[in-house]
Amino acid sequence: MEPSRISFDFSHMLAAATGGHGIREEVFDRAAARIPALHQAMEAGREAMAWRALPYVQQDIVAACRAAAARINAEFDNFVVFGIGGSALGSKALFSACCHSHYNALPRERRGGVRFYVEDNVDPDRMNALLDVIDVKRTAFHIITKSGNTVETMSQFIIILDRLRKELGENLRNNLFITTDRKSGIMKGIADAEGWDTFTVPDGVGGRFSVLCPVGLLSAAVLNLDLDALLAGAAEMDAACSRPALAENPAYQYALLYTEAMRMGANISVMLPYADALAPFSEWYCQLWAESLGKRNDRAGHSVHCGQTPVRALGVTDQHSQIQLYNEGPFDKVISFIGVEHFHSELVIPAAPIDVRDVSYLCGHSLNELIAAEMSATVHAVTKNGKMNNTIMVESLNEASLGKLFFFFEMATAAAGELLDINAFDQPGVEEGKIATFALMGRPGYAEKAAELRAGSAADARLMLSV
Amino acid sequence: MEPSRISFDFSHMLAAATGGHGIREEVFDRAAARIPALHQAMEAGREAMAWRALPYVQQDIVAACRAAAARINAEFDNFVVFGIGGSALGSKALFSACCHSHYNALPRERRGGVRFYVEDNVDPDRMNALLDVIDVKRTAFHIITKSGNTVETMSQFIIILDRLRKELGENLRNNLFITTDRKSGIMKGIADAEGWDTFTVPDGVGGRFSVLCPVGLLSAAVLNLDLDALLAGAAEMDAACSRPALAENPAYQYALLYTEAMRMGANISVMLPYADALAPFSEWYCQLWAESLGKRNDRAGHSVHCGQTPVRALGVTDQHSQIQLYNEGPFDKVISFIGVEHFHSELVIPAAPIDVRDVSYLCGHSLNELIAAEMSATVHAVTKNGKMNNTIMVESLNEASLGKLFFFFEMATAAAGELLDINAFDQPGVEEGKIATFALMGRPGYAEKAAELRAGSAADARLMLSV
Repeated sequence: MEPSRISFDFSHMLAAATGGHGIREEVFDRAAARIPALHQAMEAGREAMAWRALPYVQQDIVAACRAAAARINAEFDNFVVFGIGGSALGSKALFSACCHSHYNALPRERRGGVRFYVEDNVDPDRMNALLDVIDVKRTAFHIITKSGNTVETMSQFIIILDRLRKELGENLRNNLFITTDRKSGIMKGIADAEGWDTFTVPDGVGGRFSVLCPVGLLSAAVLNLDLDALLAGAAEMDAACSRPALAENPAYQYALLYTEAMRMGANISVMLPYADALAPFSEWYCQLWAESLGKRNDRAGHSVHCGQTPVRALGVTDQHSQIQLYNEGPFDKVISFIGVEHFHSELVIPAAPIDVRDVSYLCGHSLNELIAAEMSATVHAVTKNGKMNNTIMVESLNEASLGKLFFFFEMATAAAGELLDINAFDQPGVEEGKIATFALMGRPGYAEKAAELRAGSAADARLMLSV
Repeated sequence: MEPSRISFDFSHMLAAATGGHGIREEVFDRAAARIPALHQAMEAGREAMAWRALPYVQQDIVAACRAAAARINAEFDNFVVFGIGGSALGSKALFSACCHSHYNALPRERRGGVRFYVEDNVDPDRMNALLDVIDVKRTAFHIITKSGNTVETMSQFIIILDRLRKELGENLRNNLFITTDRKSGIMKGIADAEGWDTFTVPDGVGGRFSVLCPVGLLSAAVLNLDLDALLAGAAEMDAACSRPALAENPAYQYALLYTEAMRMGANISVMLPYADALAPFSEWYCQLWAESLGKRNDRAGHSVHCGQTPVRALGVTDQHSQIQLYNEGPFDKVISFIGVEHFHSELVIPAAPIDVRDVSYLCGHSLNELIAAEMSATVHAVTKNGKMNNTIMVESLNEASLGKLFFFFEMATAAAGELLDINAFDQPGVEEGKIATFALMGRPGYAEKAAELRAGSAADARLMLSV
């Protein structure tokens, strides 16, 4: 396995490090007393959390993904994922973290495989733009929807079915790869009726916890990534995050400290990697954290509106956008820095061929040193300004370290759900909008909701104008 | 001018629309009483806000940008912007909003100009990846730094100077376009010593308010955008946002409602466009709002830590990531929806060539209808869940509507600064990190800070571990 050590430092979450603005010692001690009960609940819930089994016993699934990927890379020029939310963000994170920043612009021989696109929106201009740059005949499509009820993905699917039929006639099946429920749902029904085999989202694995099943594994295989290392990294993190002792379990530490920060009023969680390749990983985290913990909790007999709003940021870029606010603004956030110890390449700032005056001190240093120095400087500044923060150092970006990162945050999220006494695995709050969309699109059975929407909501002429 | 009407609807900011969770009528009335004083301050400050003059009297600058762009498109294959923060985000927003989603992948004749890159980070892997896909000899570089003190941009500049010297010898100047201060700063000193002419960031125009000077205009010209329409749109919005009456001035409405929401505890501002092309516009907004209003305010004799944390989101994608939280989570945010009335293209979901069962109701509709329905459905859902929100409808995405959007948010931000009694135009909170970076990179004169950093901050062995 390639170097993949992940080092966590949560010291700056405490009051001692942040001029009194962090979590006080006695609060930390009181919170830590909850760990035995947390551990018991996490162990008791292991079977219900089906995603916890994904790092293991998947040899047949891995083999099937590899076989499909080999055919895709042999027969096609492009691979397009149609999926949204949890069906897209894991693939985007893997692609960005493990592949060249201008992958699709490289010559085929340098890529070693097809061009790669994840299309997770229904913007007509974007979809038409995609159709401008791919030849659908020469493109494999991976349609991912557990239920087959996802309007966005099913709309894309129908558009492509039509194009493939026009180009390929009866042979359209050759270009389609489908991942859906094992036995039920609209997509499974369509596939069965057509006699198509499918990849499966295992029972009980929700979208945002699905990156280590075919939802993400087929993308990884198409990109020629090391699936064994990805799963081994996840398994290694699972072992660490299953330890009973707080001092040895990073997921329990993260969950405990973040839920305490939430109680103190920190309703914002900033994910701030110092590596462009991790920007989409932040998006993956933002879904996981928001959709799992953003819940109305009625268990206490009254409604508690819970949840920390995740913010995706990027170092060093956002130092010139957000750090003014983070340093001088309210004490309402926790910042997770993610640093990379060893980038895949080095770039030295050479001696300048002209006199560059007062910036000549940069010459001889590397961008690697600069980005590391800027992260250290920003950790220093936000800490000095009393803002809770923590640092996660990744030895190197590769399949194993990504597997570790995915599994760490999944375990931390599940543990945080336990500590907050909420169900981290459902998403009842999206139903209202889904039903309203069905009604507006004329789906049979939603006439009543359509009438409610037509009635409209309170408009106020004082606050409406055009320019 | 192309269709560029912007329609604002702030009705859902009020308690009447949000089940009592918004701004109450009497609070709104009391706040509205502050408008005459706000207007007086905005008018009195017009000259100090040098960016307010940018929509006007720029004929010579526009002509210079067009001339440079014509040469760039005639002589080169690529155009690379080296800048960060306000020197990058306006160009990114314009490029995305007005150009094809896969612009660089299109054949040259469809682009009508060079490939376009904005490089706003110092990640070594990303910079090396760029160098993999461009031929520096065939590339024009636009170096943007007002002070010449920006370590990121100056590092990129030195790296490229070296490459150009090796490839082109003494002729490297031909590939360089520089925008910097009119008379002072390291970059101006370098350019003067070398005898290079430069584009100018006008006096008193800060980075985040600079998109309508050569910082953004040269990019726009290289992309063959209509600079006159961009500036005319801004001028039209300036006229509307200079009206004294609250009912006629969208910037005053936005500023008043958002600052009242902040007082009510809404410390998060979500920017949620329903158009992929506007995703970078959200980044531009996030810098403007965060860096202008995220301030420590000592004017009252004690420190107030002010500022709303902006969150960039994207419809419909984030419905499958963030909407669960927005609907069920805390009443701590305001959501700005931005919709597009007319996309540049249409895409119909055709009759399906196979039986698609329960999703057949989608057939015959278009993605244009779907994305509009999903936005309406989400507005409905968040409003029903009591979350303050507002809607900005853009008739069509083009130079004129972008000019309007840029200027609207600049005016709204300036007005919000007035209402919060803070200086919206400085950024003192970034100094600590900048100085720490200088120290870590060995800049002469920063030895004391380097010693402070070496001393380090409180580590806590209980909260440090590796996996």
